[in-house]
Amino acid sequence: MDFTKELPKKYKRDFSHSYTLGPFPTFELLNISPELAICVFIDDAFSDKDKLEALCRQKNVPYIYSKKAIERISSKDICYAAAAFRKAPSQLQNSPAHIVLVNPSDMGNLGTIIRTALGFGIKDIGIITPAADFFNPKAVRSSMGAIFRLNVEAFESFDDYIRRFPERELFPFMLDGGVMLSPENCPKADKYTLIFGNEASGLPASFQKYGQSVFIPQSDEIDSLNLSVSVAIGAYIFTEIN
Amino acid sequence: MDFTKELPKKYKRDFSHSYTLGPFPTFELLNISPELAICVFIDDAFSDKDKLEALCRQKNVPYIYSKKAIERISSKDICYAAAAFRKAPSQLQNSPAHIVLVNPSDMGNLGTIIRTALGFGIKDIGIITPAADFFNPKAVRSSMGAIFRLNVEAFESFDDYIRRFPERELFPFMLDGGVMLSPENCPKADKYTLIFGNEASGLPASFQKYGQSVFIPQSDEIDSLNLSVSVAIGAYIFTEIN
Repeated sequence: MDFTKELPKKYKRDFSHSYTLGPFPTFELLNISPELAICVFIDDAFSDKDKLEALCRQKNVPYIYSKKAIERISSKDICYAAAAFRKAPSQLQNSPAHIVLVNPSDMGNLGTIIRTALGFGIKDIGIITPAADFFNPKAVRSSMGAIFRLNVEAFESFDDYIRRFPERELFPFMLDGGVMLSPENCPKADKYTLIFGNEASGLPASFQKYGQSVFIPQSDEIDSLNLSVSVAIGAYIFTEIN
Repeated sequence: MDFTKELPKKYKRDFSHSYTLGPFPTFELLNISPELAICVFIDDAFSDKDKLEALCRQKNVPYIYSKKAIERISSKDICYAAAAFRKAPSQLQNSPAHIVLVNPSDMGNLGTIIRTALGFGIKDIGIITPAADFFNPKAVRSSMGAIFRLNVEAFESFDDYIRRFPERELFPFMLDGGVMLSPENCPKADKYTLIFGNEASGLPASFQKYGQSVFIPQSDEIDSLNLSVSVAIGAYIFTEIN
């Protein structure tokens, strides 16, 4: 598709491209993965337009000034810059720390989790489908572009993940987990995978059979912690202790 | 206002009442603070309507079956139950742990932070204005009703907060904080206040003068952690260590 000639369409999951919305993730795309960038859209009112235009030229990425193009793809949010990029699949590496999300359903949570994982140096995230679309512009936006700096790979089942990575220590996060995740109790492992369930239902009880289940100590006055909060605490304490 | 006779109006900040949207926070309101409940609205299609109706009778709270009333106040979100409640001011107690948010701007973050704080047993949250409205139905919803179980109080300035609570140890969270918040380094204190800045700008540099500034170790590949994630990690590690 040549966006310099036709207006971009509102994102759909089956597109082979997606969009960055807002200057920050657009700059991240151009700096980290310019080879994925198809076209940059700039609002003439954008205060840093000269800098963005210079970066597009340097990276050899087409750009157009078109507030209309941005409005087409950003629904109601106001944003001064956006870009179309190719959705390139990435593969997990067998690195020390993995996060696996089983059937996550909220795109904002997904983006926040990707950003948080990168913040703690965790660069491999597995997603067990069905799941929210991590390439949706909302997820890309709430990741603040972190999605371009790490590997996110979808698996059809948790067993598919295990077959690819059979030798890792597994830690399912469950409200009835066996080990309380305090700094003194946090398990040590060379290669570990932190596993989290869906926002509403958590992990199925069957995950007790994988590795060592853990739980974050929390008051029974709340139903549970928010998913992105649970992942943040797990990622923080495991990377601090290991 | 008698909601059994007139339809509720879409929430505005200057109202003396607000709304719970969705069954979970509505049940929380009735169970925890029934004296604040003005009227409950039930969609006839709600699967647990009998249970909700029985609770309303038990707590002596008026209820009406009105999908239209719910649609009026819930904008586009679908929800099967809602309630109008009086916004009652609450006052912070001089309890061991406080969280103070300086100029938070996102209602979803505010609700998540309130829910997380309760999860770690922190029941006193100060908000330095200008700030997002913690009584907005969006904040009440993302708190999952936790707002009824703790004290949230607004202060016009941080100095106003200090004047009320002069004897506490203060820990401003800053990217250039003086102490790295690892489990070994986490400060111990009898009565402490964790202080966090605005989502976009963090705390002003002037907060270095208050107590001992701290920072959460994080990769320079991200701009910063999300506010609700930072508060969660601070609340987790301080309540674990203290």
